[in-house]
Amino acid sequence: MFNFDFYNPTQILFGQGQIAAIAGLIPPQARVLMTYGGGSIKQNGVYDEVRAALAGHTVLEFAGIEPNPSYETLMQAVAMVKSERIDFLLAVGGGSVVDGTKFIAAAALHEGVAWDILAKGGKIVEAALPFGTVLTLPATGSEMNGSAVITRKATQEKRSFMSRKVYPKFSVLDPSKTFTLPLRQVGNGVVDAFAHVMEQYLTYPVNASVQDRFAEGILLTLIEEGPKALSHPDDYDVRANVMWSATLALNGLIGVGVPQDWSTHAIGHELTALYELDHAQTLAIILPSMLRVRKQAKRAKLLQYAARVWGLDGGDEDGRIEAAIARTEFFFRHMGVKTRLADYGLNHASVDAVVSALEAHGMTALGEQREVTPAVSRKVLELSL
Amino acid sequence: MFNFDFYNPTQILFGQGQIAAIAGLIPPQARVLMTYGGGSIKQNGVYDEVRAALAGHTVLEFAGIEPNPSYETLMQAVAMVKSERIDFLLAVGGGSVVDGTKFIAAAALHEGVAWDILAKGGKIVEAALPFGTVLTLPATGSEMNGSAVITRKATQEKRSFMSRKVYPKFSVLDPSKTFTLPLRQVGNGVVDAFAHVMEQYLTYPVNASVQDRFAEGILLTLIEEGPKALSHPDDYDVRANVMWSATLALNGLIGVGVPQDWSTHAIGHELTALYELDHAQTLAIILPSMLRVRKQAKRAKLLQYAARVWGLDGGDEDGRIEAAIARTEFFFRHMGVKTRLADYGLNHASVDAVVSALEAHGMTALGEQREVTPAVSRKVLELSL
Repeated sequence: MFNFDFYNPTQILFGQGQIAAIAGLIPPQARVLMTYGGGSIKQNGVYDEVRAALAGHTVLEFAGIEPNPSYETLMQAVAMVKSERIDFLLAVGGGSVVDGTKFIAAAALHEGVAWDILAKGGKIVEAALPFGTVLTLPATGSEMNGSAVITRKATQEKRSFMSRKVYPKFSVLDPSKTFTLPLRQVGNGVVDAFAHVMEQYLTYPVNASVQDRFAEGILLTLIEEGPKALSHPDDYDVRANVMWSATLALNGLIGVGVPQDWSTHAIGHELTALYELDHAQTLAIILPSMLRVRKQAKRAKLLQYAARVWGLDGGDEDGRIEAAIARTEFFFRHMGVKTRLADYGLNHASVDAVVSALEAHGMTALGEQREVTPAVSRKVLELSL
Repeated sequence: MFNFDFYNPTQILFGQGQIAAIAGLIPPQARVLMTYGGGSIKQNGVYDEVRAALAGHTVLEFAGIEPNPSYETLMQAVAMVKSERIDFLLAVGGGSVVDGTKFIAAAALHEGVAWDILAKGGKIVEAALPFGTVLTLPATGSEMNGSAVITRKATQEKRSFMSRKVYPKFSVLDPSKTFTLPLRQVGNGVVDAFAHVMEQYLTYPVNASVQDRFAEGILLTLIEEGPKALSHPDDYDVRANVMWSATLALNGLIGVGVPQDWSTHAIGHELTALYELDHAQTLAIILPSMLRVRKQAKRAKLLQYAARVWGLDGGDEDGRIEAAIARTEFFFRHMGVKTRLADYGLNHASVDAVVSALEAHGMTALGEQREVTPAVSRKVLELSL
């Protein structure tokens, strides 16, 4: 096991009715900016519940944070934070709203050019406004970590930053608020969480037994519960299991002391920036091909994955590995997320464009062993056609 | 799944060489009181490493915190904290030193009678001195939670308290510092962690899939790695897996949203208070009998435990359950911890004494369904003779 430094101070309020508790977690005199997206929270009752909970607080609103939140939009919110002397943010929505709010929190207190937070990574973040979240879409895990991914529309760049200053103070997870999610978002969320686990688990063994068991536990839960979330959308426990799994998939816990990959995400980000595919769609396309192309480097973990997650432990090793990858792909499609570039109308020309973008952004040595060069990325993309 | 509120802000620095990092985590101008036990830290090099790391700090020492730390001893430390104007505590040792230091941290800032913190539970704790820990013995999980168990020698009472004010600011876990632990402490630590998981897992199902998988993951790791820690004491990864498992067993994570038992611990505390048995010895004695006596109430989870932890999923259900309990008992003995009262020279007279103590301390409706009355506790103890 590698050395590690784990820290995660986000308070999680989980369960039906927990939105009412947020009033007690935000200082009474705070000037609160509530951030949200396109307005689905006005249909599903979340908006009303949040406003009711904060009846005693001063609350302003910033709406319109888009999927793959843009620097351009978020800088408008930063201006509002400054002009309105906001001192607490409340993100209400999915991962995009939470990610966007992290950037607003850091940029509002950043002296200098805000884009540097993304260009130079979170290391330059010295302070951030405190904020909480009310999560409506289980997927990214952003509600319990210090990471965010932001897109600059002007240049089609998708960049991330990470800082211990931008952990949410609290996050409210009410599974019943996910009953009305569109099926596409349910499927995307499960695939996203699954891929987050795989990026931290499917590398090479370092004798980190409990991290492996936890990762496998999340994967097994997503495999069992994900399809039920599609077929039984009002089942509270199913939604609760999916929601908590998605949080645990990226709150740092399963990634401590182990190598991490993230090459699938890096390639996926370019696909989204260029062609506006959903984030989870890009992961569903890239991950199976990445596992096939890097089968030798990942061999020991692929066999462990085949045995413990898919119950495949007899017969020829290569057959087991291929079967495990095929089941992974089938699971993604079963969740309604297609797994080939062609499914989204993309072809060889897109392969060239993505590889060029990776090179332009310095993404030339990806993966847990830095061996995913542009040539390897090309191979992965070609296998995904 | 039940609603829950999870919060755990303790920073974990894990791995070889991490003690050196503590200087950066304690304010430079702090007056530090280093607390420890009987002096094993002077043999294994931990004392010297800590003092070297804190060379630039003002450090005083309080030694002599005993196993099952006593109120009487700790109040001497509280007096020293006040007279020496200490403003940061550093616990260096095992669970007893960490538990004791939590009490010192809370009692030092408590107005009124310090025993009330234990008599009334942690609810009355309004503030505590900040403290960190350097853990030398994986077992109790106290290094990453807000609980402590303290014994009042004068009255043979063993009481616990819990407060969000007494989470360690940081804990350093260096597995190589556990190479020289006596075998008895290694075995005790593994059994203690195992029992902590069982108290949160082996109750009744509430569809909390991922919590179950995590609990099973810790149990499987302890079963695989625990015996290796006895047979290969210098294996770093084995020690690392045991150490991290023990922390995860009681940092709150696997217990969120699920019923919890803790009746084995309650009975065990009386055994320790009356007969000075090691904490883990009491758990090894009581847990198997508790599972047998409450077999009907715990039936579904016992079958799940048999299948997923011990691979027992064929044949007659009662046979599977008994086999899983027998394997649990065998595992405890394999770790060097005996599982019968008679092994420790105790007999029927002890049963009466323990039941009387439970009644005297109001422990008359224990367990996840409050159905462990003194009569049930008696049955459990008799089955453990």
